[in-house]
Amino acid sequence: MTQKQLYQDREIIAYKHGEVKPGSASIVEEIPLTIYVNDVELATLVCSSGGHKELAVGFMLSEGMIQNHEEIKDITLNESDGLLWIETASPVKQVDSFLKRQITSCCGKGRASLYFVNDVCNLQPVQSSKQFAASHLLKMIGALEEGSATFRKTGGVHSAALADNTGLLAMYEDIGRHNAVDKVLGYAVLNRLAPDDKFLLLSGRVSSEILIKAGHSHIPLVLSRSAPTCLAVDLADQFGIALVGFARGDAMSVYSHPEKVIM
Amino acid sequence: MTQKQLYQDREIIAYKHGEVKPGSASIVEEIPLTIYVNDVELATLVCSSGGHKELAVGFMLSEGMIQNHEEIKDITLNESDGLLWIETASPVKQVDSFLKRQITSCCGKGRASLYFVNDVCNLQPVQSSKQFAASHLLKMIGALEEGSATFRKTGGVHSAALADNTGLLAMYEDIGRHNAVDKVLGYAVLNRLAPDDKFLLLSGRVSSEILIKAGHSHIPLVLSRSAPTCLAVDLADQFGIALVGFARGDAMSVYSHPEKVIM
Repeated sequence: MTQKQLYQDREIIAYKHGEVKPGSASIVEEIPLTIYVNDVELATLVCSSGGHKELAVGFMLSEGMIQNHEEIKDITLNESDGLLWIETASPVKQVDSFLKRQITSCCGKGRASLYFVNDVCNLQPVQSSKQFAASHLLKMIGALEEGSATFRKTGGVHSAALADNTGLLAMYEDIGRHNAVDKVLGYAVLNRLAPDDKFLLLSGRVSSEILIKAGHSHIPLVLSRSAPTCLAVDLADQFGIALVGFARGDAMSVYSHPEKVIM
Repeated sequence: MTQKQLYQDREIIAYKHGEVKPGSASIVEEIPLTIYVNDVELATLVCSSGGHKELAVGFMLSEGMIQNHEEIKDITLNESDGLLWIETASPVKQVDSFLKRQITSCCGKGRASLYFVNDVCNLQPVQSSKQFAASHLLKMIGALEEGSATFRKTGGVHSAALADNTGLLAMYEDIGRHNAVDKVLGYAVLNRLAPDDKFLLLSGRVSSEILIKAGHSHIPLVLSRSAPTCLAVDLADQFGIALVGFARGDAMSVYSHPEKVIM
């Protein structure tokens, strides 16, 4: 039941009661793990470190590929490179049909780390010199929370919104964190809204996938009530996106590009 | 900025301060939406109702398949069947390469609804007559919370555990809700633990995918600090799994198979 340390301590800018000071925050890591079954690549999952063998076995179990321990012959983990090989007693025919299922039903991106290769390579730094007042960001995250009627009713949804310096422009709730963000970004395209003076708000965590979505939409600032991951912070830094987390009440933490936030 | 009602009111058993009474709860819906681009199937997403066109456009934008509104010629939505067709001004070559990416990098299941067809058909009802005391369930969810060191430090992870009537047996934290559960279920297999007298605990929401994971592992009870979805409740009902949500302090809600909970 012991766990490795799943986070890194990073420097941030802390904003509270209108005061700004440099600080440090513990930020959770995101690590890719590629699983091979009998030398055939099965999946790449983005996960926290620790329990890699358990994850691979649990994933195969959840996918109906194995039923019990007897079917597993050997497990080899190369932790530093994020690679894991499972050898099974008899061939797992679902490894091939898993691929076919992916083709047939085509599963969306989910928790995969495809973007480590494809998405990030195609991403261009966001070009915007727009600045946003810290007090306005906090006001808008409060409005997002107030508007989340379904969350209050069910506790079961994520919310996301698009805003500019005049107020909220669009807001969606969805059971999926990714879906809520995609609905907001789709709204912006369908309504021909220029992204460079807008910011993306969300109730949930900012993982690398969410950050990449903002990057594809050329949004210069991402604001969340919750925590970011290390990888999201690194990508935000690299692609010119201000990443602001734990925005609640009169406090928030700025993880990247603080020059975009007027504090 | 108006939203449809994203939930249904369902009957539950409410447990609080040791008292049991029938009640009603608003439970969020999960709906599959299959997106076709120029008549080629792109993806099936599980989402909340409303904003389907925005979701499809935002998804394509996030995947780098479109850049702006001019590339979209027409969008047709058949809401009752969960089908949406996007016609683009010029061919989107990434729709094919999206499939290829899925094959190459093989992305895990994520938010897709593959399981509506494949997983549920293969699932057998859980065979267990084991009962669990409500007071013990609450004690264990408290232990899960206490053990979540990384969450307290970073706010950025989900936790999951396996327990029986003696206490917690294994516990994992992960940035991914699915990963945390898969690690727990993988631990059970690797340590040859029989599932029929165990229960699965998690900090996060119980979506249909989580419920199906429990079903594949033959776990008779799922216990969460958070909310379930309607589809998870329906599947739990169907597959003989007791689903208990909002377990916090001395209160919890039983959504299915209350006979497995001694109240």
